Amino acid sequence: MLVTHRPNILYLTGFSGTAGALLIEPTRVILFTDGRYATQSAEEVKEARVRVSRGPLLGAVGEHLRKKKKARVIYESARMTVAENFRVGQAAGRAVRWLGRESLVEELRAVKDSEEIAAMRQAAQLGCEVFQEILSLVKPGVREVELAAEIEYRMRRKGASGAAFDTIVASGQRAALPHARPTEKRVGKNELVVLDLGAILSHYCCDLTRTVYIGRAPARIRRWYQGVQQAQAAALETLRAGAAAGEVDAAARRVLKGYRLAHHFVHSTGHGLGLEVHEVPRLAKGQKGLLQAGNVVTLEPGVYVPGVGGIRVEDDVAVFVDRTEVLTTAPRDFLEL
Amino acid sequence: MLVTHRPNILYLTGFSGTAGALLIEPTRVILFTDGRYATQSAEEVKEARVRVSRGPLLGAVGEHLRKKKKARVIYESARMTVAENFRVGQAAGRAVRWLGRESLVEELRAVKDSEEIAAMRQAAQLGCEVFQEILSLVKPGVREVELAAEIEYRMRRKGASGAAFDTIVASGQRAALPHARPTEKRVGKNELVVLDLGAILSHYCCDLTRTVYIGRAPARIRRWYQGVQQAQAAALETLRAGAAAGEVDAAARRVLKGYRLAHHFVHSTGHGLGLEVHEVPRLAKGQKGLLQAGNVVTLEPGVYVPGVGGIRVEDDVAVFVDRTEVLTTAPRDFLEL
Repeated sequence: MLVTHRPNILYLTGFSGTAGALLIEPTRVILFTDGRYATQSAEEVKEARVRVSRGPLLGAVGEHLRKKKKARVIYESARMTVAENFRVGQAAGRAVRWLGRESLVEELRAVKDSEEIAAMRQAAQLGCEVFQEILSLVKPGVREVELAAEIEYRMRRKGASGAAFDTIVASGQRAALPHARPTEKRVGKNELVVLDLGAILSHYCCDLTRTVYIGRAPARIRRWYQGVQQAQAAALETLRAGAAAGEVDAAARRVLKGYRLAHHFVHSTGHGLGLEVHEVPRLAKGQKGLLQAGNVVTLEPGVYVPGVGGIRVEDDVAVFVDRTEVLTTAPRDFLEL
Repeated sequence: MLVTHRPNILYLTGFSGTAGALLIEPTRVILFTDGRYATQSAEEVKEARVRVSRGPLLGAVGEHLRKKKKARVIYESARMTVAENFRVGQAAGRAVRWLGRESLVEELRAVKDSEEIAAMRQAAQLGCEVFQEILSLVKPGVREVELAAEIEYRMRRKGASGAAFDTIVASGQRAALPHARPTEKRVGKNELVVLDLGAILSHYCCDLTRTVYIGRAPARIRRWYQGVQQAQAAALETLRAGAAAGEVDAAARRVLKGYRLAHHFVHSTGHGLGLEVHEVPRLAKGQKGLLQAGNVVTLEPGVYVPGVGGIRVEDDVAVFVDRTEVLTTAPRDFLEL
């Protein structure tokens, strides 16, 4: 099997460089990398041979395979581009048969062991600490970009290797954009502010969203918040090993329907989380796959009302055989600052 | 033509969301996105119709194409995975003929207009300011991760939307790793420290590396630094519209050979820079493509001596018809702090 997706290589070998191709043969495992990572790969990789190649990695893999007779090689079809596939195929020659498979290693990664969950607990803890610290800065006049800078700085200071994704700080009408980038806009009075942050700690991600209101919120906004919060609670209630991923999504959606907010919930309820910020399982409409002990997922219902604002509450939850654990412990009651 | 690579979509339409597929038809242009970006796409995209789809984007593109008879569609084979290619092909049906091409939009992007170069000048300026500010913090006892945090924080405070890549702070023996991640290691006396930082400002990247020494450097280290600096100067001398990319690389390598350091120069001399931190052209061994006015490239020779440390000096340079301009103006003389 040829593994080319970086987080999969990290998961299987410990190698954290950006240039790698991992070939798993019946009797040995070879990591192909380039000269920039000669020293680093020697330090990080214990259970694979490392081959430092001069030219393109997939060319080196192909040439290595060319020497085999009639090899069958599984590759990651959801991670390899058409051009890469063509190139490695050319280098390997006709004797190699290629079998594309989607997400074999990803399925392994979806089930975290206790060491991984411990790492994710720490990442979640870090995210929550940053959120608590940042709250005192969320006031009228502060720019969205400043808050984003403070969030990422504090994550780093607490040991994060970086942000798991572009930090979202969206205030006022901009809060209606689920994936808003922070802008020069200043936070105003009587505005919703959505803060969505993720840190990478020891390679594992957290993903936390809280929404606050600057001032005293009108009844309508409070009701929306209540709807989102109850939708999340319903999702959490449904989340367990053996449940279908789609059921969890449906539970959140049902609550928002009761609030007549379902049409403002424009994304899915959650996603797996781990070495990457978006992993399987997806908690989305119609997903029939069953959740397993060891899954770690986000639960993040939201409502987005164009021209007004948006509300999202997001937590990271680990699924065990007989229970769940919310890793993100930051309070989720509605905060009016 | 179907464009699926995000920076290419941004370049062609102004859309900065993470979910998009751009279909360029003979008489109209359609951007497919999902519900999360309904509002944002309406704000950002002026010269394409936007279609908000509920299911997977490539499925929607495929269904759209299914209605055409005998369409020929160019797709980005270096950007689309085998699985995506399969899926859009299935959805489109047999009447569509798919033609993979590797870097059509990338070739356009490689030639920057004056507005883009102005944006990159500003990004470079920002990077240099951050480097100057950070210098006062580079002293014995500071941890690599702290310096990285400070660098990214200051980039943000100056208006960057984020880091163009994981900031590198590598001290002592770790400086021998060209792509080291910052660690908890503290900067020590008599150590080299490599600082490699990039900011994204108005979507455009800068990429700047400087290497400093803590204390008074031994003659051997000074000589290495001189070699790297002269290698960069030789590359800059060779860089011009009409020169082959490989010539620039060869010029740097020749100087380091004279210093008997060529075997420690384990990567290529530079790369294109723009909306992404690694673009065409590549300034690498044997690259025969000719440089053009409008290219912006890094020049970043380095030497890496395992067990001792490393030195890299990197600047961003714009190529004009009859001259070049070094966008990164931070001093590049050897600094002993």
